[in-house]
Amino acid sequence: VNKGLVVSSENGDFTMNLGGRIHADSTTHMNDDLQKRSNGDPAQAVSGTELRRVRLALRGKFNRDFSYNIEADWGGNSVSLKDVLVAYDATPNLEITVGNQKHSVSMEVEESSNDIMFNERSLLSALTLPHFDRAMGINVKTMGQNWSLKGGVYGDAVSASGNGADEGGGFGVRATFAPINESGQLLHLGASLGLRKANDNNSLSNGKTPRLRYETTNMSDLYLSDTGSIAGFEEIQLSGLELAAMHGRFSAQAELGQADIQRDGGSDLRFNAHYLQLGWTLTGEARNYKGSDGEFKMLKPRNNFDLSQNHWGAWELALRLDEVDLEDADIQGGSQQRVSLNLNWYLNANLRILFGYSRAYEVESGPLIQNGGSEEADNVDVVAFRAQMAL
Amino acid sequence: VNKGLVVSSENGDFTMNLGGRIHADSTTHMNDDLQKRSNGDPAQAVSGTELRRVRLALRGKFNRDFSYNIEADWGGNSVSLKDVLVAYDATPNLEITVGNQKHSVSMEVEESSNDIMFNERSLLSALTLPHFDRAMGINVKTMGQNWSLKGGVYGDAVSASGNGADEGGGFGVRATFAPINESGQLLHLGASLGLRKANDNNSLSNGKTPRLRYETTNMSDLYLSDTGSIAGFEEIQLSGLELAAMHGRFSAQAELGQADIQRDGGSDLRFNAHYLQLGWTLTGEARNYKGSDGEFKMLKPRNNFDLSQNHWGAWELALRLDEVDLEDADIQGGSQQRVSLNLNWYLNANLRILFGYSRAYEVESGPLIQNGGSEEADNVDVVAFRAQMAL
Amino acid sequence: VNKGLVVSSENGDFTMNLGGRIHADSTTHMNDDLQKRSNGDPAQAVSGTELRRVRLALRGKFNRDFSYNIEADWGGNSVSLKDVLVAYDATPNLEITVGNQKHSVSMEVEESSNDIMFNERSLLSALTLPHFDRAMGINVKTMGQNWSLKGGVYGDAVSASGNGADEGGGFGVRATFAPINESGQLLHLGASLGLRKANDNNSLSNGKTPRLRYETTNMSDLYLSDTGSIAGFEEIQLSGLELAAMHGRFSAQAELGQADIQRDGGSDLRFNAHYLQLGWTLTGEARNYKGSDGEFKMLKPRNNFDLSQNHWGAWELALRLDEVDLEDADIQGGSQQRVSLNLNWYLNANLRILFGYSRAYEVESGPLIQNGGSEEADNVDVVAFRAQMAL
Repeated sequence: VNKGLVVSSENGDFTMNLGGRIHADSTTHMNDDLQKRSNGDPAQAVSGTELRRVRLALRGKFNRDFSYNIEADWGGNSVSLKDVLVAYDATPNLEITVGNQKHSVSMEVEESSNDIMFNERSLLSALTLPHFDRAMGINVKTMGQNWSLKGGVYGDAVSASGNGADEGGGFGVRATFAPINESGQLLHLGASLGLRKANDNNSLSNGKTPRLRYETTNMSDLYLSDTGSIAGFEEIQLSGLELAAMHGRFSAQAELGQADIQRDGGSDLRFNAHYLQLGWTLTGEARNYKGSDGEFKMLKPRNNFDLSQNHWGAWELALRLDEVDLEDADIQGGSQQRVSLNLNWYLNANLRILFGYSRAYEVESGPLIQNGGSEEADNVDVVAFRAQMAL
Repeated sequence: VNKGLVVSSENGDFTMNLGGRIHADSTTHMNDDLQKRSNGDPAQAVSGTELRRVRLALRGKFNRDFSYNIEADWGGNSVSLKDVLVAYDATPNLEITVGNQKHSVSMEVEESSNDIMFNERSLLSALTLPHFDRAMGINVKTMGQNWSLKGGVYGDAVSASGNGADEGGGFGVRATFAPINESGQLLHLGASLGLRKANDNNSLSNGKTPRLRYETTNMSDLYLSDTGSIAGFEEIQLSGLELAAMHGRFSAQAELGQADIQRDGGSDLRFNAHYLQLGWTLTGEARNYKGSDGEFKMLKPRNNFDLSQNHWGAWELALRLDEVDLEDADIQGGSQQRVSLNLNWYLNANLRILFGYSRAYEVESGPLIQNGGSEEADNVDVVAFRAQMAL
Repeated sequence: VNKGLVVSSENGDFTMNLGGRIHADSTTHMNDDLQKRSNGDPAQAVSGTELRRVRLALRGKFNRDFSYNIEADWGGNSVSLKDVLVAYDATPNLEITVGNQKHSVSMEVEESSNDIMFNERSLLSALTLPHFDRAMGINVKTMGQNWSLKGGVYGDAVSASGNGADEGGGFGVRATFAPINESGQLLHLGASLGLRKANDNNSLSNGKTPRLRYETTNMSDLYLSDTGSIAGFEEIQLSGLELAAMHGRFSAQAELGQADIQRDGGSDLRFNAHYLQLGWTLTGEARNYKGSDGEFKMLKPRNNFDLSQNHWGAWELALRLDEVDLEDADIQGGSQQRVSLNLNWYLNANLRILFGYSRAYEVESGPLIQNGGSEEADNVDVVAFRAQMAL
């Protein structure tokens, strides 16, 4: 029921259901009277409202062993294909997936935006998302109750057109193991490795610029850390380590990531990022962890919000510390640390409301500085509200 | 059934249904050999065929008190998000709605394009639609059998990107009361007030130009009245009064609207528009009025079209007189009057065919004039055909 | 079941079902180190992966005699409306269809990309698809068990905007007859005629360039035959003849097409194309032919793929020879012949995998030549893989 209503054939070999997702955001920045270091042009965050994510998904099963997902996002009145794939469950422990799908790297990338405890992903995503988000490819996954091993090879991300050269490609592989995985008790270990090659023009054939950066919110157009376009971009390798734990209402999750970039006519580059996040369910529920995926799923409230019964759903506090360093050799992408605090209200299995605050500090050597001076663009604050509906 | 087939959980607390809409248009202009007043360039209407509206909507209910709507339009092969919202029915008389939705102003804006009696909205929409259509926001509504009071605050409309400044915002509030509201007998009174502020750049951060204008059809690219971009646009206030009545097969509806614009470095502007429309159901059915929304819904034929039973559905004649004046101070947007006549055929609850004719007359001081001369662009005719399917 | 799961009202007068389509492609070119004949610029095919087609379709029936289809494609992250129409079954032998739909020409155009035996349509589509694909219009069809006659008039294809002149338009009419149409035995004859007029600017008001050409794959941006933009394009007439036959596991299909173009200020043009294709179902199934549509539908395997039962679905070999000649008067569009070979694996009614190879040879006088020389761009090879899911 919480995944939308399912239409099923009598024997259950054929099913179909429709999913949907609305993330309606309102964001405000403070201390964002900035200018560009390079030329003094003003640079201010765009604050306001937006439909961050609006998705429909048609999912189903056919001939017992096959399933599919066709999911697209219309946020900002443009189309962005998400999971568009066909899966074959060869055995209960072996799944082959063909189509547009996430690279098999990083716990945080694999977790759904419906399920993470913050309005935006961590600074680690400056290393992961630009080149290791979804792409056309084949994933092979083998898994058990408390472990998973998934690897895949991929072409380029969906693009409206090529750019005169054959596509690049890549691979990703991720392994997770949860030596402790009982009700409300968890110890999770994970590691992943990804690789992506640019095409013969040292560019990405989906039209994206080869660079690493982090936008404060999806609509702000404000990047406190940004390498700019990396000339001669040949290949990026992403390595990551994961650690997570849960004890009843308390959970913790951390990742270390490192990106190694080879350039045609320039020294190699190495960038780092990491995050540590802590969750505390004020109303006592434990979070949901799925051992065969090696990831957290959305919290389900014990009692759904219902005024007539004086039930108030679940409430969660989350704290995250993250850091990214995009400085190496001639690339001055800047570095920053950040603290994020979220108060999340889960009304029921389909609806939650997020109140988020974050402050970027120790912002150094990045593309932006304080307005009218030479001081660093420090202490930029973001206050974010999200109403989230998910089927 | 007429709203699409519904899948429901056993206790009815969860439902899901899919809606859709096709408006397939064919339009022809006459007396449209015009030129621009400013530079003499030719200006002719584009006549032809188009998919005016093609929409899918996923709607449903969850946890009894919550509902959602995800609706998008693909007409012209581009995405335009429509109602994308989550609603909470706090009590039977109180509803809170979060997401992308119409401003709470003007009966004609609130009525669906599926339900109005004409191919295009009235000249009043030159004042309403440019700045008071859908936007991200929160509406609160309280209502009874024959009255409604809805108000909301909104950010900007959905946009693909910001433009370097924080979004503007606005509010809208509308009250309706129907002292007579019985089967086939109606007296409706309404009033609404809307306000929208531009952003700090005196522009709309959704990339739209701040201006008021009216296009003869959605594809014509012909504007007989058009203020052009209004420099220094700071704030627009919209005031409206509504009156409607129904007696059996006859109905009438009228609105007065006034737009007051404040400018940064220019005198204030005031523009006016109004319409009066009459409906006559030749086959005798009364139109449907929903008192808790304060609006008309689509006519339902008594007998659905069925050749085998010699049933011919419902037929409706509609007449509209409207006028807009976009002249004030230094803004020469022109003024026009128009008469529109529609013959509408309702085959069943899902299908209707519209035959529309309109003539714009008393067109004065607008951006277009007769070709090769200095005469006003008078007596432009539009003949329009629409096949409409709605679920 | 193979058309998606259907929700139906009790008496069956109202139904609704959701369809979907995924074509996930990977393509590689060989011998594609080419350059432009005109200026020597390099011209290489873009090889790689893409979501060739990603579609959702909402289909249904209402009031017994009416049905609809709303289908859109999101491949390449852009919207392309496909069948968007309402149909009225006036009698069992008479159907009227209004909306966006295919021109009634050419067996190969009418057949679905889900059903044809090759990754891409034949070289004949260089004549048909540029001007006789889908457009807004009205089709009237009368048909029997083994014959069909369909004709329609159309405006222009869906476009985001006009271009300052009234739309052009066209018509298409196609007749098919199958004197033999029994289980596994078929003789099909068909003929079609289409006409399309450009608008008053000698252009197509949907923004497309008036020209004929053939792209080796949807993403390659490589055109071995291409007329370039045809100045003074006034009108194109398309004539076609069809012949098809089936004997058990063997099938054959051939079409001849001729395009006659009238120009404003240039001599008339005549271009020709044809193809012959042979199918051989290795696992013995006969293909499906629908006499009332005059086209082949997708093969259904006798035994669905199921490892546990040692079932391997259906396997099919297909061979196609095609040729196009875009040379006439001052238009140097080039000519080519091609051979295509496909091995297709039908796992079940919803899933098939295509392995395709093609070689273009006798490529002459076209826009591309061998790199660094003056030799013709001969023997360009394409290897293509497709995973196809269709509901």
